[in-house]
This record gives sequence, structure tokens and C-alpha cells, in this order.
Amino acid sequence: MTGSASTVETLRWRDGRLELVDQRALPSELRYIACDSATAVAQAIRDMVVRGAPAIGCTAAYGVALEALRLQNQAPEKFESGLNAAFAALAASRPTAINLFWALNRMRDACRGVSAPREVAATLLAEARAIHAADIEANRRMGRHGAELIRDGARVLTHCNAGALATAGHGTALGMIRSAIEAGKRVSVLANETRPFLQGARLTAWELAQDGIPVTLIADSAAGFLMSRGEIDAVIVGADRIAANGDAANKIGTYPLAVLAQRHRIPFYVVAPLSTIDLKIARGADIPIEERAADEITGFGGVRWAPQGIAARNPVFDVTPAELLTALITEAGVIAAPDGAKIAKLAKPA
Amino acid sequence: MTGSASTVETLRWRDGRLELVDQRALPSELRYIACDSATAVAQAIRDMVVRGAPAIGCTAAYGVALEALRLQNQAPEKFESGLNAAFAALAASRPTAINLFWALNRMRDACRGVSAPREVAATLLAEARAIHAADIEANRRMGRHGAELIRDGARVLTHCNAGALATAGHGTALGMIRSAIEAGKRVSVLANETRPFLQGARLTAWELAQDGIPVTLIADSAAGFLMSRGEIDAVIVGADRIAANGDAANKIGTYPLAVLAQRHRIPFYVVAPLSTIDLKIARGADIPIEERAADEITGFGGVRWAPQGIAARNPVFDVTPAELLTALITEAGVIAAPDGAKIAKLAKPA
Repeated sequence: MTGSASTVETLRWRDGRLELVDQRALPSELRYIACDSATAVAQAIRDMVVRGAPAIGCTAAYGVALEALRLQNQAPEKFESGLNAAFAALAASRPTAINLFWALNRMRDACRGVSAPREVAATLLAEARAIHAADIEANRRMGRHGAELIRDGARVLTHCNAGALATAGHGTALGMIRSAIEAGKRVSVLANETRPFLQGARLTAWELAQDGIPVTLIADSAAGFLMSRGEIDAVIVGADRIAANGDAANKIGTYPLAVLAQRHRIPFYVVAPLSTIDLKIARGADIPIEERAADEITGFGGVRWAPQGIAARNPVFDVTPAELLTALITEAGVIAAPDGAKIAKLAKPA
Repeated sequence: MTGSASTVETLRWRDGRLELVDQRALPSELRYIACDSATAVAQAIRDMVVRGAPAIGCTAAYGVALEALRLQNQAPEKFESGLNAAFAALAASRPTAINLFWALNRMRDACRGVSAPREVAATLLAEARAIHAADIEANRRMGRHGAELIRDGARVLTHCNAGALATAGHGTALGMIRSAIEAGKRVSVLANETRPFLQGARLTAWELAQDGIPVTLIADSAAGFLMSRGEIDAVIVGADRIAANGDAANKIGTYPLAVLAQRHRIPFYVVAPLSTIDLKIARGADIPIEERAADEITGFGGVRWAPQGIAARNPVFDVTPAELLTALITEAGVIAAPDGAKIAKLAKPA
């Protein structure tokens, strides 16, 4: 394979159901799981069948649409209470990625003034499809903006998976890399394996290899050594929620990379759609940080390597202060040294 | 169990053979592997049956003694060439920990002026036993010196395993914690799991739990988040080689912790015997850094999670510049803000 067109469909609407790539099974198996209710979608988000902030947003939108379609022949009151329950279940699935709440708000807004259940359902499905299409388009725009920051021959470090699998397609951080390659630049990627869920080893390595993009896997803790030896030219990551001041929550382990990049004067880029910005949160310290089950730390994939009975902590996001961001790349453009004023200007509706 | 006496014997001399805890099998199984030749010992070091700089030094010393005993009834020339081959095989087993070469040099020095094979063999066994006993004593001294730096109630982060299992007993970093507990302080430990070989999850968690010391396991990349939330009071690690200027090589992932600790004004302590100091190496950048096989990165314990055919880099040590060390703790005392002059004074033979 050559070039940079990502072919995997992270989520797709087929035969009236939402199909999700089961990201827990990758890379050993590429299989889809079909969801036909909001409950099933919420469960899939919670269990990380689908992950990545933009992909979670699109998935939740379809989750609302699915439920509306499922209930569209019910009496209006039953329809409305069922739909409200769907919104609540989806909102409770994961706490950190703001795109989830952003998508649910868009779905709420879309059906204002529409009351007949079948009409609401049709409106919601159209809105979910619009969110889905807009995410791909946003990723393409981010990619084009960001590609200009990547020099020919660059060795780029990325963390977790901010690729096609984390979005509706193309990717945020990996989209920027794909777009640079489309523009004719040679780019090689160092992928942090990203414990505990190993999104880097399982997903980023897989999707880049699928596209023929050179990728080398490393332990998360090796980035500092490779920076000290001059082997990393840029760090490019996604984000799960960006506060009004530019502080960015992303996969656990992102913040240490930003601190190391600053020490080594390596540019550190965050690539995320505007839907990731949460103007209601003043600063990163206020972003809710999900802690997941200890068994993600004590082993992997059914294999346990830690002693029985040992305690573990599993915060799955951290916060990188805005001062450590060389630039924030959104579909609206590149913001160098982001701060509250620049973000307020950017996030203002056009 | 209460208190702080570590009971596991990492290595022991029994019935004319060297027995090593098979650290690859922990924590699921506590078993010993017996070695009866230098070749077997070199293989055990290479395969990480035994690991940890001081333990590798003691093990290599016994490896020389074993070979001398095995060959002591040979003709003198054959004995000498066999012994030289043993030194060479052991020296080639792993490159970074200087304690290995330090111990081999001590063994060489011990038999100068002795020529009868049986007498050489007896001398070498006595020297290996002396190195073994001195390591435990050095750890106890380091522990007593270092314990004064730990406050009651401290939450200490450690990386890899610098415990009883990395030494002849008691441990360096974990020895300091054990000694603080012996002195009546309450100390809880956060253990980095330490990818790729998982020494933290498998060994540190196990040996601390054996001793009843509170330990919580985290992903290596979570340390930055926990520091940012004020949940870490000190970082304490061991070392594999310390250059003349105080730069310290230790398990991959140590350097990022030091950088993060500096940012958060958290003390960062390196605990290592004088035998870890290599005055022949001027600065950390000159320390040879071992890179191990890619398959340690692409999975663990026979389970592969990365895609087939993916490239991986696996440097297993990094270098922390002396400027990031709050103090270096050796058996000779505590050196705050270590530098070349302080280290030269310390490492001078008494």
C-alpha cells in the first residue's frame, strides 16, 4: 500500500443500525459490532469498543438517532421519556471527552420545534449523519493546516491513537501526518504503545501500517531518551477536552511528553476539532479526569502479571498546560502559543 | 506480615552451585534456577533471570568462582584459559550496569599472586562471598543514610525494581524505604509498572507486598498526572551506572520522572552503591545504553498485541543529568546536588 488514504471506517450506518469497529479486537481481528439502541451504544462507549473523542461524539449522536428510530412508533410521551433516557445514558458513558456532550447538545438542538416522533427520528438521523460528515471534513481541514508545520523527513512522536480510528475518518494528529504525506513530505512516526489500553501498539501501529506509513513502536517511557538523543523532531497528539485557557486533556502520558518536549525545544502540537474546546471550563485542573478499573493496570487481554490483591490507580487522562503547546491546530486554522484570548476568538460562532 | 525485613534471597550459594530466583517467573511463581558454570551464569544475566545492577555484580562474581571450581583440577594453562573465557563471557552478558565490570575487576584483583588452580578457586569463592556480604551491608548503610530524607507519611514514587531482588538483599531505593519504615515512619509507595519488562508490576509490587509495605501500581505514564495533583512527595530510584559528573543511567523512564519532579519541585533521589560509579566515564552521554529485542515491546509473556511485522525500538536505560538529582545516596553518605567534584571526593579509595 502507498500514500495516505485511510480506508478503515471507524463507524458506519448500515441497514438501520450503527456498526462500530471493535477496537478491543484490533489488530488481531477487524470486526464490526452492530448497535440497535442507545443502551447498546452507551455500553460500547463505556467498554471502549469505540474510543477517541471525535469518534465518541459521532457515535453518541447515532446512539440518539437509533433510539429515536427504535421508539418512533410509540406514543409521544413514551417517545419523549425514552429519548431523554437515551440522552442520559449516553452522557453517563464516559466523562472526559467533551465531544460526547457537544454532540448530544447538537442532537438536542436539532430537534427543537419538532414534535412528531417519526419526524424527530428522521431529523436526528440526519443530524447524526451531518456530524459524521462534518467530522471527516474537519479532520481534512486540520490536516491541511497542520501539514505545513511538518518538515520533509520529520520523525514525529505520537501518543495513543488520534487517527482514523479515533474519529469519523482521517484522524486529528495522524490526519496531520497523513496530510503532510499527501503533500509529498516524507514523515516517519514513533508511536508510544500507550499503556494501559495499548492504543498506540494496537491501533496507531495498525492503521499507519495499513496506509504504508513508516511506524516504529516504543515504550511510553522511552520518549525522553529518544528526545535526548535528537531522534524526535515533533510531538503531535490529539485532545479529549480543551479548557477556555488552552489547557488540554488528553490520554494519560501526554503531559510528560509536553514537559520533555519543552526541555528539548521540540515543537509540541495538539490537533483537535473546535468541538473539543469547552469554554465552560476555565482551566485544565477543572476538567473531570476519568479513572478506570485497576485490572487495566494489573495485566492486559486476560493475562495478569501483577501480584493478586495489589492496589492500582488508573487515571486515563492528564492535562497539558497551554504554556507547553507550541500550537493548537483546529479546522479553523493554526493557533501558535494558544491562550484564553486566542481561543475565545476562535471558538466564537462565525 | 509487618515491618521491613526482606526475606527473599535473590541469589544464594548452595551445595557448590549458585541459585538465582528466576525473576521472569515472579510473581506467579517463586522458583530458583541453579547455575554450575560461568556460561550458565552469563546466560541467566542475559535472559534477565537475575537483573538489577548490584545483583548482576554479585552474580557475575559467583560466576567466576563457579568456573574456577569447575576447572580447578585441570592443568594450570587450561584452567587459566578457561577462567579467562569465563571473565569474557560474563563481561559480554549485559553492557550498561557497571557493577558487572566492577565485580569482575575485583575478582581479577583477588587472585593476583595466586597461581595454583585450587587455591585460585578458593580465593575467588571467598571474594564472591565477600562481595555478596558487602552488598547487603552497603544497602543497609544506604538505607540508614537515606531514611533521614523521607518524612513520616511520605508517598514515594519508584521506578523499575531497585529492591531486594535487584541486590544481594534489602535493596537500594527500596532499601531506603525499608529503613525509613524500620525507623518508625509511615511510607506508602507508588510503583511504576515499568514497561517493557514490568519489573515494577511483577517485582516491586511483589516484594513490597511480601513485606507488608503499602504499594499502589500505576502506568509509567501516570506519574506526571499524579505529581500535578500533589500526590507524590518524593521520587526514589536506583542506578545502573553513574558517570564521573554525576549523570545517572537507570531503567528507561527514569529521566522523564526526574524532569517532571524538577518541574513540580519534588525531590528526586538516586540510591546506589559506590560500585555503581564509573569514574572512567566523564558524562552520561558516553554510557553505553543497551537496546534489547523488539519482542519485549510488541507484547509480553508470550502474548503479542502489536501488529505482525511492526518495527520497534527498545532502549532499556536512559540517562538522568546530575543537575536533576536532589541527592545521591551511597553507603558513604548523602551527597546533595551531586557534581564531579563531590563524586571524585567520594569515590576516592579510603
